[in-house]
Amino acid sequence: MPAEATTVPNTSHTPAPKLYEKVAERIRGMILDRIYRPGDRLPSVRELSKQSGVSITTVLDAYRLLEDSGLIHPRPQSGYYVHAYANLKPAEPMRSAPAPTPSHFTRDQMLQSMTHEVERPGLIDLAFANPNPDLLPLAKLARIISSVAREHPEASYGYGPPSGHRAIREQIAQRSFAAGAVISPDEVVITMGCQEAMCLALRAVCTPGGVVAVESPCHYGVLQAIHLAGLRSLEVKTRTREGISLEALEDALVEQEDKGAPVQACMVSPNFQNPLGSCMSVEDKRRLNAIANRHNVVLIEDDVYGDLGFEGDRPRVLRAFDGGENVVICSSFSKTIAPGYRVGWVVAGKWHSEIERLKHSFTISAPSLPQLVIAEFLTDGGYDQYLRRARKAYSFNVGRMSEAIARYFPPETLVTRPSGGYMLWVQLPECVDSVELYAKALSHNIFISAGVLFSVEDGYRNFIRLSAGKWSPEIEAAVAKLGRIVHQMIQA
Amino acid sequence: MPAEATTVPNTSHTPAPKLYEKVAERIRGMILDRIYRPGDRLPSVRELSKQSGVSITTVLDAYRLLEDSGLIHPRPQSGYYVHAYANLKPAEPMRSAPAPTPSHFTRDQMLQSMTHEVERPGLIDLAFANPNPDLLPLAKLARIISSVAREHPEASYGYGPPSGHRAIREQIAQRSFAAGAVISPDEVVITMGCQEAMCLALRAVCTPGGVVAVESPCHYGVLQAIHLAGLRSLEVKTRTREGISLEALEDALVEQEDKGAPVQACMVSPNFQNPLGSCMSVEDKRRLNAIANRHNVVLIEDDVYGDLGFEGDRPRVLRAFDGGENVVICSSFSKTIAPGYRVGWVVAGKWHSEIERLKHSFTISAPSLPQLVIAEFLTDGGYDQYLRRARKAYSFNVGRMSEAIARYFPPETLVTRPSGGYMLWVQLPECVDSVELYAKALSHNIFISAGVLFSVEDGYRNFIRLSAGKWSPEIEAAVAKLGRIVHQMIQA
Repeated sequence: MPAEATTVPNTSHTPAPKLYEKVAERIRGMILDRIYRPGDRLPSVRELSKQSGVSITTVLDAYRLLEDSGLIHPRPQSGYYVHAYANLKPAEPMRSAPAPTPSHFTRDQMLQSMTHEVERPGLIDLAFANPNPDLLPLAKLARIISSVAREHPEASYGYGPPSGHRAIREQIAQRSFAAGAVISPDEVVITMGCQEAMCLALRAVCTPGGVVAVESPCHYGVLQAIHLAGLRSLEVKTRTREGISLEALEDALVEQEDKGAPVQACMVSPNFQNPLGSCMSVEDKRRLNAIANRHNVVLIEDDVYGDLGFEGDRPRVLRAFDGGENVVICSSFSKTIAPGYRVGWVVAGKWHSEIERLKHSFTISAPSLPQLVIAEFLTDGGYDQYLRRARKAYSFNVGRMSEAIARYFPPETLVTRPSGGYMLWVQLPECVDSVELYAKALSHNIFISAGVLFSVEDGYRNFIRLSAGKWSPEIEAAVAKLGRIVHQMIQA
Repeated sequence: MPAEATTVPNTSHTPAPKLYEKVAERIRGMILDRIYRPGDRLPSVRELSKQSGVSITTVLDAYRLLEDSGLIHPRPQSGYYVHAYANLKPAEPMRSAPAPTPSHFTRDQMLQSMTHEVERPGLIDLAFANPNPDLLPLAKLARIISSVAREHPEASYGYGPPSGHRAIREQIAQRSFAAGAVISPDEVVITMGCQEAMCLALRAVCTPGGVVAVESPCHYGVLQAIHLAGLRSLEVKTRTREGISLEALEDALVEQEDKGAPVQACMVSPNFQNPLGSCMSVEDKRRLNAIANRHNVVLIEDDVYGDLGFEGDRPRVLRAFDGGENVVICSSFSKTIAPGYRVGWVVAGKWHSEIERLKHSFTISAPSLPQLVIAEFLTDGGYDQYLRRARKAYSFNVGRMSEAIARYFPPETLVTRPSGGYMLWVQLPECVDSVELYAKALSHNIFISAGVLFSVEDGYRNFIRLSAGKWSPEIEAAVAKLGRIVHQMIQA
């Protein structure tokens, strides 16, 4: 979890504050008073030393303390800056309060038109959840592709097994161990990305007409998959940082039971949910399993961002905890290695055989070459090193975009503080209609996702999701332009 | 269309037969009397010249006449052989007579276990419809893969458009012209092989609980797709060589209308149907469109073997004819270029937009690399040359397997005479249960498809489908072994 701006620094716990702690406290006060605003550069170490009459070392210690508390951050060769999070109100106002009515997803056509609009030349795409190409190991992958193409002609001439090639299933099983799950390669079914994984899981687990509980807000891909399976989504209040509210979930389960339409499955993304970037605690994961077992609800876990936490250990999947044997895990390499390969997977416990059959009926088998290329990349050990670099970069880029939003958007704007992934969920002033904002931004070649895509209600009209995996002067200019448009919409 | 063994040679139309025609007639008589049996080597030209007291030229002319009539064929450096077709009874007894009841497909589990069995080392696979690897342009594809991987990093880092990359859609549109259809690249949606194409088409066109008319026998992939969409299949009598019986189809449509459960769609494979290898005439295609329009039934055309006719021009798709504007075409490169790439497509007329949306919800987009590789292969012009070689080879290999069946199976065995593709549909004596034969063959590492897979009824129990794309002494030995097993089953 990233440090919180509003946390009182450690200094307050010590009986007699040291000199560097006093300096830090003074700077902190100026930030909270908005003398230094989010994104502002703080005085240089030398300047502050001179102003405060303290040593360079003391200033450095003070800045490090503020950095540890998450209030400021250094930029190489540039000095210290106020973190974007510093202006955030507490997360509570952003908590969702969805209506307790299961509904069908209705934004298919908006998504469809977006898939065409994104082809516009020169578009700055902040809408779709593409990983940052500059981070991906593309040169290495190209080399592996050539050697696999030479050495594995069967990747062309054979259909490949419906469950996928063993080499990649073994790698997935091995890597699941880091997420706390003991999985056999025989349990893994390779799919067309996480999207097909979710479609197959829903199809296997639910019966048409049923109800599936989801986080609110919820990635539209989940809502599409549920709708496609002939099911309705029931949005459940979700905390901006800690994930789905277990109290709200259990209330919803009980209420649906009382209505005689029990929830059949619950689709959750405990690790760096899209769009919130929230991460459930170990204790909440345990409790979620217990609730699901108690109410006979199948948990379908989307773990597609699980490898992209900003700090700390790889968070565990629900299967790692008591009662998690029947959690269906859906994931893919689309966010970490290459979306264009469309390699995902599902691990489905007691639904494995059914899912394997469904996979054969839908698409026979997945293309072989991308599977073998990713298996080779995972085998040769470059993945962890690459991930370390990517996680750091995403953390940095998400921070930069947060700062820019704080700088260019109206002050009442709220932004999530994700602990992984590369999405930002932005709450705009009430009067801003994000569908209108989407159209206005597009006319300036800036592409964003309107909040209404993340709900089956007409909720989140004044929210947008920004994909923050990349950062550049061009993107900063786009965020600035977006901010100006929002300002204009408020004044109008 | 291949020449028929039972056709009376042209000679009968001439007033006074010439000498070489008399010689040919004598040989023909000996073949029909089974003095020379299918697969037998005929006397050498020199021998026959000596025996008959005619010149070498006359014998050569006689053999060429018999060859033209399809009764015999030459093998290089070896002489002339009796064609397998020579012992076939007329096709009529193999005409299907399905029950007029829509049903669900129930052989999913048998197919699933087959997808595991096929992994057995040393298995001779005559079951699955894999193209012959020796024919595929694998070396060329491997070179293209390397260059595409280097030159198109976006194939890795982007999701790619839901409808597929323009380069391949353009090639598909261009090539459709050879099949008589004028198609714009904007109408094409790239899919995971023909299987996803069919699933999307059914989903767009039909409503759950509906009825879809199919050929009988029908490729199990079609029956799976229909079942998966929550629909029932209604098998319609299909002629062994000429495709679906239009009279039977119209009767079925009327009957279902009378029952209040009108047929919503008709899935047909007019060009080289799997498993029959039948090809509809131009006139029948015209009539099929008219019937569909008259009864408000959507035609979904599986054209996956359309490029693999043994001779003559590329047969036209239904869209090429009056009233074909709303035929949904489903196809793929899995039978022609590389099944492992899983590149298929759907051209859906007025359902295009709906199918594009469904595609995005199911699997977002298809993997980019295989699309770009196939586009490049099609662009550089090697495809037609390759196809000519492949069509010739399939024709030859299918002929060899037919001969072997005639030689090694009981004489009452019937075999189709496909005009394209590489499937043989074999009718065994009534008492032979092909599910039992499947198991017995598997215990000898020979893999076949039981006839029951090609029907939603329990029909075709004494049929098998053999995939005849390859030919080798090893495969001949497997066919011989199969024949012995069938002989034993009859005697038991």
